[in-house]
Amino acid sequence: MELGMVGLGRMGLNMTVRLLRAGHAVVASDRSPEPVAQAASHGARPAATLAELVAALGAPRVVWLMIPSGPPVDAAVEALAPALARGDVIVDGGNSNWRDSQRRATALAGRGIAFVDCGTSGGIWGLDTGYCMMLGGDAAAIGRLAPALDALAPPDGWRHVGPPGAGHFAKMIHNGIEYGMMQAYAEGFEILDASPFDYDPAVLAHLWNQGSVVRSWLLELAERAFTRDPGLAHLKPYVEDSGEGRWTLHEAIDLGVPAEVLASSLFARFRSRQDNSFRDRVLAALRQEFGGHAVQER
Amino acid sequence: MELGMVGLGRMGLNMTVRLLRAGHAVVASDRSPEPVAQAASHGARPAATLAELVAALGAPRVVWLMIPSGPPVDAAVEALAPALARGDVIVDGGNSNWRDSQRRATALAGRGIAFVDCGTSGGIWGLDTGYCMMLGGDAAAIGRLAPALDALAPPDGWRHVGPPGAGHFAKMIHNGIEYGMMQAYAEGFEILDASPFDYDPAVLAHLWNQGSVVRSWLLELAERAFTRDPGLAHLKPYVEDSGEGRWTLHEAIDLGVPAEVLASSLFARFRSRQDNSFRDRVLAALRQEFGGHAVQER
Repeated sequence: MELGMVGLGRMGLNMTVRLLRAGHAVVASDRSPEPVAQAASHGARPAATLAELVAALGAPRVVWLMIPSGPPVDAAVEALAPALARGDVIVDGGNSNWRDSQRRATALAGRGIAFVDCGTSGGIWGLDTGYCMMLGGDAAAIGRLAPALDALAPPDGWRHVGPPGAGHFAKMIHNGIEYGMMQAYAEGFEILDASPFDYDPAVLAHLWNQGSVVRSWLLELAERAFTRDPGLAHLKPYVEDSGEGRWTLHEAIDLGVPAEVLASSLFARFRSRQDNSFRDRVLAALRQEFGGHAVQER
Repeated sequence: MELGMVGLGRMGLNMTVRLLRAGHAVVASDRSPEPVAQAASHGARPAATLAELVAALGAPRVVWLMIPSGPPVDAAVEALAPALARGDVIVDGGNSNWRDSQRRATALAGRGIAFVDCGTSGGIWGLDTGYCMMLGGDAAAIGRLAPALDALAPPDGWRHVGPPGAGHFAKMIHNGIEYGMMQAYAEGFEILDASPFDYDPAVLAHLWNQGSVVRSWLLELAERAFTRDPGLAHLKPYVEDSGEGRWTLHEAIDLGVPAEVLASSLFARFRSRQDNSFRDRVLAALRQEFGGHAVQER
């Protein structure tokens, strides 16, 4: 099939390559010309603008967005909508908030354009492994995407999971779980590192992946990282988050669901970015006030 | 090789079967006669007592314990030690506390008996998959066990990880991580269940195992459970713990390592067992006291 890919970052470019390898036709566009040229070198037709991209696609069109969530998606949808026609499909394969996806689906439905929200997991490994994809939206529109989804996903690796928003909601929770799993491994390996034993974390990560209860793909990645640098000394202990973990907690709060581990995982990341936290100075000050405990002055 | 297996519960009996299948000779003993008869039906030589078991083994002997941690292991070691000779090996394959294993190794070393602590993961699936095994103790003694370890573990699935105690310490942390991972999945699936979408959790668990970042063996087990009963309505929301999670936290505290997710996972299990918690009554009482908030009287 033919589709337009908007956004050629790590994910979008690799997905374009995977689609091209499977024999699909891709019209590729990005804000910067370099990745467009790269996509073209793999066989995509380049488009310098969204208008060019739409013009290059035969109706009914499929336009696939792999761009940062929030205003960039709204801007792309606003630019695309007037150029598209009834029966066209916009897929948002990024990490958008599911409520934004519901809103966009409703707005575009009024124009006869289907909006499909597609939670996409797999990271930089997706090029080879395939991407795990959770799709929300209209069944007929998702059915039209099937050849592309079959090319992008590993076997059995995509699924229509519900109405508009359901794909991005599922992906949000996936990422929330990911934070918790990562934090569990991180804390466990830190206790091992502080232990009286001289463990090689790469050895343990490898060993645990041979039949233990905690075996997982994340643990395979941990083995890779520990093999390169057992102490991870080349890294600062600074951890970003990209939004889905926060939304997971907003959702848990609105739904009244206790999610203490997912909350702790997110807060641990916030903590990792503080090198002079007010709260720790507050604690030190209070200990000094009531007990005259020694503090470390600057 | 030949060894004596003491304790024929879910783990010990399956390990015996796996050893017999690989052509090893096993003398099997248990407190109850039924599993001994079962082991014998698979080809083990039965032993009614520890004395019989020791007498049935040719020197140098290997006696493998798969019994509950704590006093039962001390009782077995005390019964075995006088009957064993220099050069014999006792393996503790259960979930003993690593400090107990250090103590036992030291005490037995005085008699010329090697004590090997072996953290064993794999649960009831180990019979087919093999057991992941982390071994602490004397290298020569562990080397003697290699043929049995090769039979019990999947390929590359056992490793000498350090001196006495190091095997059980690693297994303790493995289980602490397991608690955190399980809790992360549990919270994520609860938010999905409370969401406005009508997800099938078995479908999501299966889908996520096809290339997503959170794919793991635990998630495969979740798919199995959700496939049998999507709402898990046949279960009480009551979760036991078997000690290693508590020890992990004791260790984190003694080492001064923050382990908020591992702590929350353990506390969530404690919480699961309360159906009338004092702390929630304290909170309700305090809200009523200061704000006149409505409470639910019994």
